[in-house]
Amino acid sequence: MNYKLYYWPAPFRGNFIRFLLEEADEKYEEAPVKDISELYSLPIEDQPLPMMAPPFLHDVERNVYLSQMPAIVMHLSEKLHLLPQDSYKSALCNKLVLDSNDVLIEITNYNGSVMWEREAWRQFRDKRLKRWLEIFEQTGRKYGLKSDSGFMLGGDQISTADIVAYALWGTMIRCLPELSADCRKHAPYIFGLCQRIESRRNISQLVKNQEKNYGKLYCGGQIEKSIRSMLEQDGKQ
Amino acid sequence: MNYKLYYWPAPFRGNFIRFLLEEADEKYEEAPVKDISELYSLPIEDQPLPMMAPPFLHDVERNVYLSQMPAIVMHLSEKLHLLPQDSYKSALCNKLVLDSNDVLIEITNYNGSVMWEREAWRQFRDKRLKRWLEIFEQTGRKYGLKSDSGFMLGGDQISTADIVAYALWGTMIRCLPELSADCRKHAPYIFGLCQRIESRRNISQLVKNQEKNYGKLYCGGQIEKSIRSMLEQDGKQ
Repeated sequence: MNYKLYYWPAPFRGNFIRFLLEEADEKYEEAPVKDISELYSLPIEDQPLPMMAPPFLHDVERNVYLSQMPAIVMHLSEKLHLLPQDSYKSALCNKLVLDSNDVLIEITNYNGSVMWEREAWRQFRDKRLKRWLEIFEQTGRKYGLKSDSGFMLGGDQISTADIVAYALWGTMIRCLPELSADCRKHAPYIFGLCQRIESRRNISQLVKNQEKNYGKLYCGGQIEKSIRSMLEQDGKQ
Repeated sequence: MNYKLYYWPAPFRGNFIRFLLEEADEKYEEAPVKDISELYSLPIEDQPLPMMAPPFLHDVERNVYLSQMPAIVMHLSEKLHLLPQDSYKSALCNKLVLDSNDVLIEITNYNGSVMWEREAWRQFRDKRLKRWLEIFEQTGRKYGLKSDSGFMLGGDQISTADIVAYALWGTMIRCLPELSADCRKHAPYIFGLCQRIESRRNISQLVKNQEKNYGKLYCGGQIEKSIRSMLEQDGKQ
């Protein structure tokens, strides 16, 4: 067992890390919730690394810890050889992880700090979410993604950019299927990429397990209820 | 001229990039505001890279663009040899940039999405800001930062971790001097580190220019007024 992931039993930010580990066929385990809470609540000086909030990753072999989803993703990507050789393309992987993190902050109305209201949600769905989808779509097209083949940054090797695009959009439209039409409309090539990544052996198995264990659970909490209520109201219009 | 930075004429997120370029003695220029607005407002498919919001960096030599402050910082850090050799310590630099970005989001009440109200501000200043300061302080102490010498991640070479700590906390307490006491109390070693970084030749010159051109301007906009109003009220209690 090479890695231990401390993240709530929900897809959301955790899937970025899980899918990387699965794609690279790494041995890892997920910490039970009580261990996450315990590590999270320790006084700063007693934590193995001073950290604010999960996800945390324990690199068991080196016995070091890391927090911040994008930092964990980039660190693992390098260790697991999932970054493009070219240093600029590697920076683009990081940029796409950060874009993804922004989308997660936005769809949860700033990490659930307030519940959604209609007007703000409409603005988000019609403008920001659309623009984010277009950003991923145009990035992929610029480098060689096609409607039925290819990868985000071109070449014939899967990279972190593809895993990230799927962790963001694939997870979102699986858990919130009403948004599937938005993705198909504003980012058709990304939609196709998500289907291809979802059928990869290990990732496919993990997604099946998540469906079985959590159903359509996305980020959890009150904010997930708020998102679903908005989607339901959108559907009635 | 090797780089062109597209960021509003304010310290805030821009200083993370500027200080790196200054420390490495790189030739760069800042784009005028009208060029920033123009690049920002282009349809996604006409942008040189699909990007949501500044800062943008144009790597003139390679003629490539990058967005997302933490991605720009890590890309430049690697090119300018400001990352520690050790891959885990390099990941810690990334983690500290991401922590910093979170602090910036928090102090502006989610990038200025709503103005501060007293109770939320008190919670932020007394709990979250304190904890963030402690996170930087304990990280530094763990690796060799002392009250009057040393760097964030140990060793005798300045790294991105030090530039980042100064870009976050040094800029904050210079522009919002009421918070100086919070830093000195909860993160005394970081306070000392900021003074040492501020006296480095190029950085010192840039900070003097910022003082001259922008005074104490921090992030700008309505949210800066809101932060200053909170600090003023805190001072009366």
